[in-house]
Amino acid sequence: MSIERVAIIGLGLLGGSLGLALRENLPGVTTTGYDASPATRARAAQRGLVGTVCDSAAEAVAEADLVVLCVPVGAMAQAAREIAPALPAHTIISDVGSSKQSVARALAEALPGHVVIPAHPVAGTEQSGPDAGFATLFRQRWCILTPGPDAPEAAMADLTELWEALGAKVEIMDPAHHDVVLAVTSHIPHLIAYTIVGTASDLEDVTQSEVIKYSAGGFRDFTRIAASDPTMWRDVFLSNREAVLEVLGRFSEDLTALQRAIRNGDGETLFDLFSRTRTIRRSIIEQGQDDARPDFGREHGD
Amino acid sequence: MSIERVAIIGLGLLGGSLGLALRENLPGVTTTGYDASPATRARAAQRGLVGTVCDSAAEAVAEADLVVLCVPVGAMAQAAREIAPALPAHTIISDVGSSKQSVARALAEALPGHVVIPAHPVAGTEQSGPDAGFATLFRQRWCILTPGPDAPEAAMADLTELWEALGAKVEIMDPAHHDVVLAVTSHIPHLIAYTIVGTASDLEDVTQSEVIKYSAGGFRDFTRIAASDPTMWRDVFLSNREAVLEVLGRFSEDLTALQRAIRNGDGETLFDLFSRTRTIRRSIIEQGQDDARPDFGREHGD
Repeated sequence: MSIERVAIIGLGLLGGSLGLALRENLPGVTTTGYDASPATRARAAQRGLVGTVCDSAAEAVAEADLVVLCVPVGAMAQAAREIAPALPAHTIISDVGSSKQSVARALAEALPGHVVIPAHPVAGTEQSGPDAGFATLFRQRWCILTPGPDAPEAAMADLTELWEALGAKVEIMDPAHHDVVLAVTSHIPHLIAYTIVGTASDLEDVTQSEVIKYSAGGFRDFTRIAASDPTMWRDVFLSNREAVLEVLGRFSEDLTALQRAIRNGDGETLFDLFSRTRTIRRSIIEQGQDDARPDFGREHGD
Repeated sequence: MSIERVAIIGLGLLGGSLGLALRENLPGVTTTGYDASPATRARAAQRGLVGTVCDSAAEAVAEADLVVLCVPVGAMAQAAREIAPALPAHTIISDVGSSKQSVARALAEALPGHVVIPAHPVAGTEQSGPDAGFATLFRQRWCILTPGPDAPEAAMADLTELWEALGAKVEIMDPAHHDVVLAVTSHIPHLIAYTIVGTASDLEDVTQSEVIKYSAGGFRDFTRIAASDPTMWRDVFLSNREAVLEVLGRFSEDLTALQRAIRNGDGETLFDLFSRTRTIRRSIIEQGQDDARPDFGREHGD
């Protein structure tokens, strides 16, 4: 691998985990980092998220072989413009954003002539900020690369090797297809979780205190996702608008059909769906994409 | 507490956990049990879910001070009719069903003259059957009692003491209010989870294999809930139809508003909601209703 110096722009959950994972798995690689927030930079330096926390994005990327933008997708264009003047000609640009078509466009526009290989490691927790990252976040997770048609083979091989060294499995995908797949497996689940938590807070007949007390009936699962970073997720929905609206339309149709089944007392339709959905859980566990323990391995008792 | 003999009808996740929790916390109490499935009875005997597994519901309840019906809510009436002829006059009848108005009606009708105190321990996992139960399931969880206006104080005190001995916290609630609260905190979350997992399976553009591979983006959380017992949940939606449809209507309105915000590029509406929903998560953790560890304490890495 010819990547010896990696610059990480944005030192939150993803950027911080990337820095820690690089240190643990590729100790020969030098890391620099930058975050627009002075408080985040200070905390990143304390935790050693990267080897050197720089005072500007330009300084962080000045000698990098690879720059990974770990900012909300709506901030990618601005981050790219900031580093453009300082960027060495050979540097590969990548990112970790959750939508890929809009990011690919923004980076290509801001950095013409550079090798840009957008990426999306499908990994995270509900936490955010410089304290949230940890070195094992990417293990056993998929990292999706969405290269343009003229991405150099050597750069693709380097980026693949790097992510695999962090424990990830790499897949290559068309950016438009990525955006539909992730709308289903990530964006719509987040939108639904945010919505139901909002709905529950706004009811007049049920108090907030009751919602909290009896959340173990299922609701609490949704509150975890709905505690995710608001800026990041606002940007995801705005940048992947088309695919999100498409999948949301399908979801709403299906929900309406179940609503009708409940209204009509049609237990068979309900039972058929509820039986079908079990098998997907089994496959997810078999393929190592979730904890096999009941209840995610939550602790029961005191 | 004057309850010395408890009969458990239905030896799945809830019934089995109740039996194990009684043995662990109230070893002086004698337990009998019955399940309509011979295979479940055999497994229950092997695991020692109750002291004696009986060959009929009538035999199980013949000397009981308390009978707890742990069958799907749609099977409560039939279970009550089965035990009616064998039930001693002093026996308290309770249950663990997730909807309370319909169960209260069914039990009162099948067992006139008996003390009936419906109950709902808000606890569970996505697993079901005689292998799923464990003794600590009820610890730190709320158990909601929904007594009718003439429930005897002594019976209420006994039932409360029993659940508290198993580690639960007891709350008393009007059955109609229970059904709305649980529609929000449990039933609608389950319905939504089942729906999105169904939607994801049925898309033409995204393969099942892709849904599984990239499920760590949020989707996998929903698959856990959508792996819950189909019979139990069909019955819940049919028996709590009115409250479920009411809350579902509110959810759909809220989802439509977000859909419009995404279509219009209205980031402020999205950001406002996404910021608001974080605080509920914090309260749930503060009140001991969920694991405080990120990602529910899931294991990361290998």
